[in-house]
Amino acid sequence: MNLNLKTETEHFTNPLYLESGRILEPYDITFETYGEINEDKSNVVVVCHALTGSHHAAGTYEGENKAGWWDGLIGPGKAIDTNKYFVICSNVIGSCFGSTGPMSMQHPHHEYYRYKFPVITVKDMVKAQRILFDRLDIHRVHAIIGGSMGGMQALQFAVHYPNFADKIISLAATHATQPWAIAFNKVAQEAILKDPDFKQGYYDPEVVAEQGLSGMAIGRMAGHISFLSPESMRSKFGREYKRNDGLYELFGKFQVESYLEYNGYNFTKWFDPLTYLYITKAINIFDLSRGFDSLEEALSKVKSELHLISFKNDLLFKNFEMKEIAQTCDAIAYKNYTYTDIESDYGHDAFLVELDKFEDKIRGMLDG
Amino acid sequence: MNLNLKTETEHFTNPLYLESGRILEPYDITFETYGEINEDKSNVVVVCHALTGSHHAAGTYEGENKAGWWDGLIGPGKAIDTNKYFVICSNVIGSCFGSTGPMSMQHPHHEYYRYKFPVITVKDMVKAQRILFDRLDIHRVHAIIGGSMGGMQALQFAVHYPNFADKIISLAATHATQPWAIAFNKVAQEAILKDPDFKQGYYDPEVVAEQGLSGMAIGRMAGHISFLSPESMRSKFGREYKRNDGLYELFGKFQVESYLEYNGYNFTKWFDPLTYLYITKAINIFDLSRGFDSLEEALSKVKSELHLISFKNDLLFKNFEMKEIAQTCDAIAYKNYTYTDIESDYGHDAFLVELDKFEDKIRGMLDG
Repeated sequence: MNLNLKTETEHFTNPLYLESGRILEPYDITFETYGEINEDKSNVVVVCHALTGSHHAAGTYEGENKAGWWDGLIGPGKAIDTNKYFVICSNVIGSCFGSTGPMSMQHPHHEYYRYKFPVITVKDMVKAQRILFDRLDIHRVHAIIGGSMGGMQALQFAVHYPNFADKIISLAATHATQPWAIAFNKVAQEAILKDPDFKQGYYDPEVVAEQGLSGMAIGRMAGHISFLSPESMRSKFGREYKRNDGLYELFGKFQVESYLEYNGYNFTKWFDPLTYLYITKAINIFDLSRGFDSLEEALSKVKSELHLISFKNDLLFKNFEMKEIAQTCDAIAYKNYTYTDIESDYGHDAFLVELDKFEDKIRGMLDG
Repeated sequence: MNLNLKTETEHFTNPLYLESGRILEPYDITFETYGEINEDKSNVVVVCHALTGSHHAAGTYEGENKAGWWDGLIGPGKAIDTNKYFVICSNVIGSCFGSTGPMSMQHPHHEYYRYKFPVITVKDMVKAQRILFDRLDIHRVHAIIGGSMGGMQALQFAVHYPNFADKIISLAATHATQPWAIAFNKVAQEAILKDPDFKQGYYDPEVVAEQGLSGMAIGRMAGHISFLSPESMRSKFGREYKRNDGLYELFGKFQVESYLEYNGYNFTKWFDPLTYLYITKAINIFDLSRGFDSLEEALSKVKSELHLISFKNDLLFKNFEMKEIAQTCDAIAYKNYTYTDIESDYGHDAFLVELDKFEDKIRGMLDG
């Protein structure tokens, strides 16, 4: 069978009650599906995306070269096998790829929300998805899986909708964002906010995408440091120069500098800076135990089979953060979980690039 | 005895031949001394400063509160005991605290060098100090000690002036700057260069110091991430808010954000941005083996007693980088070295703040 990629947008007119106490209405959610839903709707797998990801998790759009961000994992015969499963990935509320976010048009005025857009939390993202699934007449799913902020969403589903998923698979995430991750985000936020072309949020999005907001490029460079690891940077770049003809020994540009420049400035062409502020904020304030007395109490709600996967050299969400979830499961005698720490030099990016290190595990978790 | 702090500046009219092939003339070196030199000049200890340090390593200036950056280590009865040793610390060439740097006045024109200032390397810094010591009629010293870029200088002295020091003590440094350290510096350099108030290097230094160059503040925030460690950030900040009154749960500022803001913006009041570009460049291009076929060949020049100290959770110069120097000493059968890896959660900053973890070792190395 083929991938059967479909992209759709659903419009919602009922208010979305947010964790901040504010209301979002109306709102859109853009999502993508792969494979086919079976008769009893027992084969649904929800995939959740990370900070700069989107609903486009697999397949390639007509006329484009770049496949979805987890294309190596999702498809016919792949670990998330679309011959078996009906896969849904939605763009989170607050993002900039079709779902309603800070640079969406505010209703009924035909102007951008900008700072009038409410603070969004991971819990809000999950709540909006739950409403989307209701609309699609899906009331229970086989599994929810995601990495990084996607892994946060999977955990949030487990705690707040304990009857919704049979299996939860969370990769390269945390139970609560730690100060070093907040610090990396802070550099990016400050660089965006202080860029005069950002115009305190009143930039023209088309001009910014055209010219590239250097503040966001600089912030993204800091982000890339947190996505890699010393080990991966050493093997990828070493102390190599972009050009290596002697003269460059003192005056040249290191390959790592060139990599950061390219990825930093290229990023400004396809991601919106105000959205970056909102989503990094959502990541910073993520805390699975918010609203509970403790992480123990939060995890005591979980009924799904819970799979926790960390990566040894992850700098952003250190492997011990996932281990703390496992230890808390032990402390409350919740036995229906697995914890796997993957050997990888790749750092945080491993969940996107070192698929061969964990795809068999994912397959086993989904099919087992 | 008291500290006997003296601050002086020497002026040099002979050209300084730089590694880049360029010449610096004339130039000044500002330095500080503590203690008293003995009759046969056998008690001299050279202290080398780091990126943003200066010659003011110990003691407190009249009317100021802040002591020198290694005041806990240098003084009467302290590990670097000024009752025994005559300590010299000079501001490196290229810095902004009295020695000639990019914002010094160019001779004979009465205007700032700015970008006309040549690229400076750690080897140049060391060469200039060697010339200063000649002027002071000091031709051999008891020890050279420094951390971070100061540790690089100590190593460079060991390789290029093998007969100059009896002992070399290098802390929290490396034999060649690795891509993750270059990456952190890249964020800072890019943030400075893209700040419109930097005016492509043609800023008014007084205005910039008054208003604070936000690009440098942002870059410094990235730097601070590399100076700390996940462990130290967790114990220092956790997920605490600056204010904690409920409302702040979603909208507040985390303590780690406040720390970065304060240190980032405060930094712009006392450090020059163009100098930051030059010194981070010097750090990036530091490679002890430059000019040799290999690190083995470079280290084969060393005749001093060599002491290498790393810190377990140093993110900027990872402990294995110092270990690689030790391993290379083994490979070339150079036995006159020690390697110590200090248990510390503090990260790179440990060489400045966790003195109790290594001061006895320093005392032993100097006195032994």
